[in-house]
Amino acid sequence: TSPHPSALSLSPSSLSVDMVGLQRQIDELAAFSDTPAPSVTRILYSEKDVLARSYIKSLMEEAGLSVREDAVGNIFGRWNGAEAGLAAVATGSHIDAIPYSGKYDGVVGVLGALEAMRVLRRSGFQPRRSLEVIMFTSEEPTRFGISCLGSRLLAGIEAVANALKHVVDGQNNSFFDAAKGAGYDVHQEDLSNMFLTKESYSAFLELHIEQGPILEQEGVSIGIVTAIAAPASIKVEFEGNGGHAGAVLMPARNDAGLAAAELALAVEKHVMESGSIDTVGTVGILELHPGAINSIPSKSHLEIDTRDIDEKRRNTVIEKIQQSATRIAKARGVKLSQFEIVNQDPPALCEGSIINAMEVASQHLNLTHKLMISRAYHDSLFMARVSPMGMIFIPCYKGYSHKPEEYASIEDIANGVKVLALTLAKLSLD
Amino acid sequence: TSPHPSALSLSPSSLSVDMVGLQRQIDELAAFSDTPAPSVTRILYSEKDVLARSYIKSLMEEAGLSVREDAVGNIFGRWNGAEAGLAAVATGSHIDAIPYSGKYDGVVGVLGALEAMRVLRRSGFQPRRSLEVIMFTSEEPTRFGISCLGSRLLAGIEAVANALKHVVDGQNNSFFDAAKGAGYDVHQEDLSNMFLTKESYSAFLELHIEQGPILEQEGVSIGIVTAIAAPASIKVEFEGNGGHAGAVLMPARNDAGLAAAELALAVEKHVMESGSIDTVGTVGILELHPGAINSIPSKSHLEIDTRDIDEKRRNTVIEKIQQSATRIAKARGVKLSQFEIVNQDPPALCEGSIINAMEVASQHLNLTHKLMISRAYHDSLFMARVSPMGMIFIPCYKGYSHKPEEYASIEDIANGVKVLALTLAKLSLD
Ligand SMILES: [Mn+2]
Ligand SMILES: [Mn+2]
Ligand SMILES: [Mn+2]
Ligand SMILES: [Mn+2]
Repeated sequence: TSPHPSALSLSPSSLSVDMVGLQRQIDELAAFSDTPAPSVTRILYSEKDVLARSYIKSLMEEAGLSVREDAVGNIFGRWNGAEAGLAAVATGSHIDAIPYSGKYDGVVGVLGALEAMRVLRRSGFQPRRSLEVIMFTSEEPTRFGISCLGSRLLAGIEAVANALKHVVDGQNNSFFDAAKGAGYDVHQEDLSNMFLTKESYSAFLELHIEQGPILEQEGVSIGIVTAIAAPASIKVEFEGNGGHAGAVLMPARNDAGLAAAELALAVEKHVMESGSIDTVGTVGILELHPGAINSIPSKSHLEIDTRDIDEKRRNTVIEKIQQSATRIAKARGVKLSQFEIVNQDPPALCEGSIINAMEVASQHLNLTHKLMISRAYHDSLFMARVSPMGMIFIPCYKGYSHKPEEYASIEDIANGVKVLALTLAKLSLD
Repeated sequence: TSPHPSALSLSPSSLSVDMVGLQRQIDELAAFSDTPAPSVTRILYSEKDVLARSYIKSLMEEAGLSVREDAVGNIFGRWNGAEAGLAAVATGSHIDAIPYSGKYDGVVGVLGALEAMRVLRRSGFQPRRSLEVIMFTSEEPTRFGISCLGSRLLAGIEAVANALKHVVDGQNNSFFDAAKGAGYDVHQEDLSNMFLTKESYSAFLELHIEQGPILEQEGVSIGIVTAIAAPASIKVEFEGNGGHAGAVLMPARNDAGLAAAELALAVEKHVMESGSIDTVGTVGILELHPGAINSIPSKSHLEIDTRDIDEKRRNTVIEKIQQSATRIAKARGVKLSQFEIVNQDPPALCEGSIINAMEVASQHLNLTHKLMISRAYHDSLFMARVSPMGMIFIPCYKGYSHKPEEYASIEDIANGVKVLALTLAKLSLD
């Protein structure tokens, strides 16, 4: 007989998730926040982010993993397999949190992955390919406007390495200064050394809350993702003459704030015109300068997010937004001083064999499952460029995410951890 | 013969403005700023505001005035008249500056008033009624959302004294803590002691840049104000469910940011519907929460300023804005969690006899003048409640104000100082 038992020889009863311990870790991690509970705010390279990173590294060490960090702070915890020379099987997610968000987004895929490792260890499983947990740096774009910063670099996207030369945060700190402040003395030339080859991983898996209402509504335990919608983000700036809110009469104005308001409504209109429920668009940032009640806005800044599972349809929306921005600027006599498509990523397809392994694992565990689209994007979108990729979704309360009310039950999380553990075991032996 | 010569016995040639010195003072004061030149930012009770206050007090002392400060930091510099028991003639303005504004708004009326005192002294003039220069605290609403804070208190407006119990700035500092930080150990009970009686001043005058383009366009040196437009300000907040910008599909959204965008455009529409060129409305503040590119706004906050020389017509605009806010909230399924009319002041009329004295002074000085409306409001709007009031405008470049490009030539400022000096002299002898 083989020294490596089939993953499916792991009986469901041998896979025991420590729900009390896992919930405690989720709660402890949530306490590293710049805003009061129940909200969580954990911004890249902030003091709280650095503390949270230490917490993750110590959990990795306690779980017996070999811990490594790369130049920008992606954290890797490896369980060496019997054939450590083979490409490893990796799983992970992020722990950064946008302002006033919740404690499950990303976190479930990092702490859950660590628990999956412990589950497999406790079951007596011995990996053939090494298993690795990854905590990605800055999945959220909050600080430098670049989402999935860590996974984009691992995926070898040169444009991100170049953009990091110039980006600054809201306080005019450079990326490199911010990294240094968090203990990462990274330089431009270190970034291309992070790029992964296609030989690094045989598979990448991510466990995540659905961030949508479908699984909860349909009473299904496990979502198995088949594709990730294609995201794009745009920065826009209008400039007018500003002036005193009392003294400048209406016909003499060119109000940059009203141009921004019009564009925000145009984004909604163009998205609705796509005719598909799968097209979404959001103006999450709209800032006015100088921002005083008695000053006509002389500058406005918008950041627009638009996504679709159909890349071409999404690109049509972007074109319409650009046409509207130009038309509004002309009609209002303001200057369209910036229209920058910051990123315009293609969608990613999940690997058929991984989808299949997840389906088999769900059945083996007697958990209901369904195939679905991920409308939110994830580090998996970029890991898919260097590795076969798959994602597991679990239900979350009302589909809420990116706000304090975000919630997933520990039972649902435990189900996800078991499917992840079983799939990791299977892929480790392949 | 009378011991007090007629003010008009002051020959134009005896009134000499020190233009070099006055320009230097304007430039020196502008250097107390939290943002780089040419912009000026000087916020109530900030470090720079405290330094600027010391500068004003030392100039007052150098000019031989007796200096006094009240509980909130209104600064008074008095030249005692021969009949010091009579109600004094006062003149003044403010030196606080909204973010990224210019160096003439308010400043011309404080440094110009001081120069008018020096001009009169140099001419050998002896006041009968005392003459007083006032520097008002916080004409601009930047820090606590209350405009003309100092003059409203002097005017005995109880609502302001009450509001100060509760207001906080953007960093959650109370008014009283902020004042204490600037050296003003003021308590609630001190505020009503500041209220002036109608016997305090026989007249109040304010010299100010026009903040509009008319004098420059028409080549007129002096504007004599007949009335100040009636300002109102409104705070609005919308609340929705927020959520993830990728995961929440369009029909499931109630976006508080789009509600704000709609209301901003509705404000413009309702103002235009008034049919009068004199109606203006501005959304100078529009803030989204949480303010992340991948989060649907769950809260939005707007501050709206609307003004008219016709109070009733302005109040009609406010009613329409409120109706729109209610309609938008309903249509978008968001909550209108705040609609607060922060202030809704009546217009003020300037005193006929003061207007007349200013006209005579302009003619005497051989300066062209015109009667006009003040569309911006000023501390004069509130001083008018406790004293006969008049305002002198001087031309400014393109009507610009509340931005770094704000500019008035020293020659135009000197003309305003002379008209002010002659009018003060006349009213002092009345
Ligand atoms: Mn997220
Ligand atoms: Mn996430
Ligand atoms: Mn002003
Ligand atoms: Mn002013």
